[in-house]
Amino acid sequence: MSLFDYIEEHKDQHLQELCDLLRIPSISAKSEHKKDIERAAKWLADKLGAIGMEGVEIIPTKLHPLVYAEWLHAPGKPTVLVYGHYDVQPPEPEELWTSPPFEPAVRRNKLFARGSADDKGQVHIHLAALESLMKVYGRLPVNVKMILEGEEEVGSENLHAYVRNHKRKFASDALIVSDTSMVAPGVPSISYGLRGLSYYQLEVTGPVQDLHSGVFGGAVPNPLQVLSDLFARLHDRDGRVAVPGFYRDVKPLAAGDRRALRALPWSEQAFRRFVGAPGLVGEKGYTSLERIWCRPTLELNGLWGGYMGEGAKTVIPAKGYAKFSTRLVPNQDPGKIARLVERQVRRLLSKTVTCRFETLSEGKPWLASCHNPIFQTALSALEEGFGRKAVFIREGGSIPFVTEVHDLYGIPCVLMGFGLPDENAHAPDEHLSLDHYFGGIRSVARFYEGLAEL
Amino acid sequence: MSLFDYIEEHKDQHLQELCDLLRIPSISAKSEHKKDIERAAKWLADKLGAIGMEGVEIIPTKLHPLVYAEWLHAPGKPTVLVYGHYDVQPPEPEELWTSPPFEPAVRRNKLFARGSADDKGQVHIHLAALESLMKVYGRLPVNVKMILEGEEEVGSENLHAYVRNHKRKFASDALIVSDTSMVAPGVPSISYGLRGLSYYQLEVTGPVQDLHSGVFGGAVPNPLQVLSDLFARLHDRDGRVAVPGFYRDVKPLAAGDRRALRALPWSEQAFRRFVGAPGLVGEKGYTSLERIWCRPTLELNGLWGGYMGEGAKTVIPAKGYAKFSTRLVPNQDPGKIARLVERQVRRLLSKTVTCRFETLSEGKPWLASCHNPIFQTALSALEEGFGRKAVFIREGGSIPFVTEVHDLYGIPCVLMGFGLPDENAHAPDEHLSLDHYFGGIRSVARFYEGLAEL
Repeated sequence: MSLFDYIEEHKDQHLQELCDLLRIPSISAKSEHKKDIERAAKWLADKLGAIGMEGVEIIPTKLHPLVYAEWLHAPGKPTVLVYGHYDVQPPEPEELWTSPPFEPAVRRNKLFARGSADDKGQVHIHLAALESLMKVYGRLPVNVKMILEGEEEVGSENLHAYVRNHKRKFASDALIVSDTSMVAPGVPSISYGLRGLSYYQLEVTGPVQDLHSGVFGGAVPNPLQVLSDLFARLHDRDGRVAVPGFYRDVKPLAAGDRRALRALPWSEQAFRRFVGAPGLVGEKGYTSLERIWCRPTLELNGLWGGYMGEGAKTVIPAKGYAKFSTRLVPNQDPGKIARLVERQVRRLLSKTVTCRFETLSEGKPWLASCHNPIFQTALSALEEGFGRKAVFIREGGSIPFVTEVHDLYGIPCVLMGFGLPDENAHAPDEHLSLDHYFGGIRSVARFYEGLAEL
Repeated sequence: MSLFDYIEEHKDQHLQELCDLLRIPSISAKSEHKKDIERAAKWLADKLGAIGMEGVEIIPTKLHPLVYAEWLHAPGKPTVLVYGHYDVQPPEPEELWTSPPFEPAVRRNKLFARGSADDKGQVHIHLAALESLMKVYGRLPVNVKMILEGEEEVGSENLHAYVRNHKRKFASDALIVSDTSMVAPGVPSISYGLRGLSYYQLEVTGPVQDLHSGVFGGAVPNPLQVLSDLFARLHDRDGRVAVPGFYRDVKPLAAGDRRALRALPWSEQAFRRFVGAPGLVGEKGYTSLERIWCRPTLELNGLWGGYMGEGAKTVIPAKGYAKFSTRLVPNQDPGKIARLVERQVRRLLSKTVTCRFETLSEGKPWLASCHNPIFQTALSALEEGFGRKAVFIREGGSIPFVTEVHDLYGIPCVLMGFGLPDENAHAPDEHLSLDHYFGGIRSVARFYEGLAEL
């Protein structure tokens, strides 16, 4: 039986299996789900063993376990490292889900469940592809090392530590990750660029305690006003980040890159409709797609202080808080940017308050050199799997593990994702297109095959 | 026995009684304290009856009961309406209290408990004064109507409705309120001005749902940024409220008023120390005292949106919220100001978002004409009670009931308060100076006596 025939015949079985995995609420951010995380790790380890993968390990860490498996019986063939994560975002607000987040449901040829797109569904594409290869050929065409983590949604700290301490264990010729999106429905895509990130928290203190805004209002510094004044000044009129030196190391977008972006089947109108706001914003001189994929940004992620309950309370709060982040592009350095941002925040901040500035996390931007022949192999595999020409795209988000592996081993990283930006990865009604799921299984299986010929 | 001797001899008894009242956690904002509110109302009704007040009523309302009592056996003498409230603010954060909020404790001659200053302690000053007069003279020198409410901290809605519907019941020659502060320790004070208030809530919506700030950051309107941009523009460089027409009806501060303010024993240094911020702020051209008592303001009371938990979450929230208020002075009209503020907010707000603007509450500013002889009577009584010259001050906060009675009956309102601005009325470790408590009982008792001579 041919590989694609096998995959076609086992569609139902694969989907049922994925649903089993999606039913486990492996929410990494919440300690009450510790047992579920462990159940998911066990489920994956069992499945990897059943497929025929070897050396299956559930590796305990300080937080959530890693799952590792390998198959190394293809001497002379490349070794690929496959990465994915089995933890998911919290489902809140649950009342906005059409069907319960951990009871997978198919509607309009889409599979709805927390983790369907990010990233259990995409991890399962690899499991199904590997299983299909094993069943059809009795072996894998290349050597495979697979590492699955349970902390992607909470910072991947223990994965990074473990890989750094076991450098030889993970040595390989390429990294394959399926945790990104396609540019449009039905258009298979390889992401060759990721933005980096520095994430900050700011605590501003005015009065030493909350004060009555009637008794004190008009004479004392209000931390919420101070934060508003600050953030209003961190962008200029052209939508550029107003931090001196912020753009100094930004590699300009080449004319060829801009042409390639414009040629993509990406619809500004569909984007606008999905966002649903009365208007879009952004840095002057760039298209929306350039803004989200190729340009650095500064974005408020949280802002709070004072009275947030029902009705009126006349308070001047002692403290105000902000969480914000800068998305970075080549060749910006997250540490350097964090220092520039902190300096500017302290410079602009009113001297009537005190502040605590923290950098919570940092991740480097990444841009692949697409000249490596592995990318041609990936494009062909995607084209076969989807019956449509594959394209190179970028991704506005960050996958710190990609940069980590890239730096540690200097190997090519192929980001072959099967989600869509509007599949609500971190929101209610997360879903995955079933066409993309099955196209993904076909493409990934074909990709493993193609890698043998490199 | 003289009145003051009686009061001196019954200090312990009065204080113990007040502590009994303070032990009842009559928190009006929390429905789980409904029974405590009822207990406090019952305690007061019983006490009023025991003193010899008549027609004692516990009047149920849609929320918390009113307590009413009267004594009307002084024909030919004035009738005074005494107002106070027996509900208190929630004690949170409880961990910041040195002793538990509902276990009164005396330290450094101060009585610590939630409600000690605001307003149970001041209500009890009147109860103790009335009791002392009854015990010493067997009667009261004037006719007294007393109304105590349990909703002051949550908007007084039912009090206002009840008084409007029972206008004759409350008809009187003057209103006496003890719910304000003294200008400095030991300096008895009468507040002749209160600021008004309009309180607003703003909900800003950008994207129709929360978005990933990596995937979307740089191209979509962020409601938190939009709110920052807005509030940064609602003040000008001179600290003035940047709402066209905002100052149009403001009665300028007369040179004589400014001189009187400067002559008060109010210490900018003590104020600065109490606030504890590295600096003060405010409208150019005015002193801190003028800013908090006599000038209108616009103040953020709450601001929130996005991720407020631990660590980093890369979200662009769909919504951002702000609660803010304008404090008003004569002759600003709250409704008119609310319209001007809403118009300016809508004008300045980015057109990339939608907004919902609500006015949550309104209260008029109030300024007494101090020419009425009742104020001389009050000054003399305070001077006798405290052994120190009393002064006229203003108050930055609002007491909507004062404006209501002033408008309804056109009678003078005497605000004879015994708190201090740094007694943490709405914060942990609320307290009342015992010197002020006993000085208050003497002054109020003498004031009732003096009123008979008017």
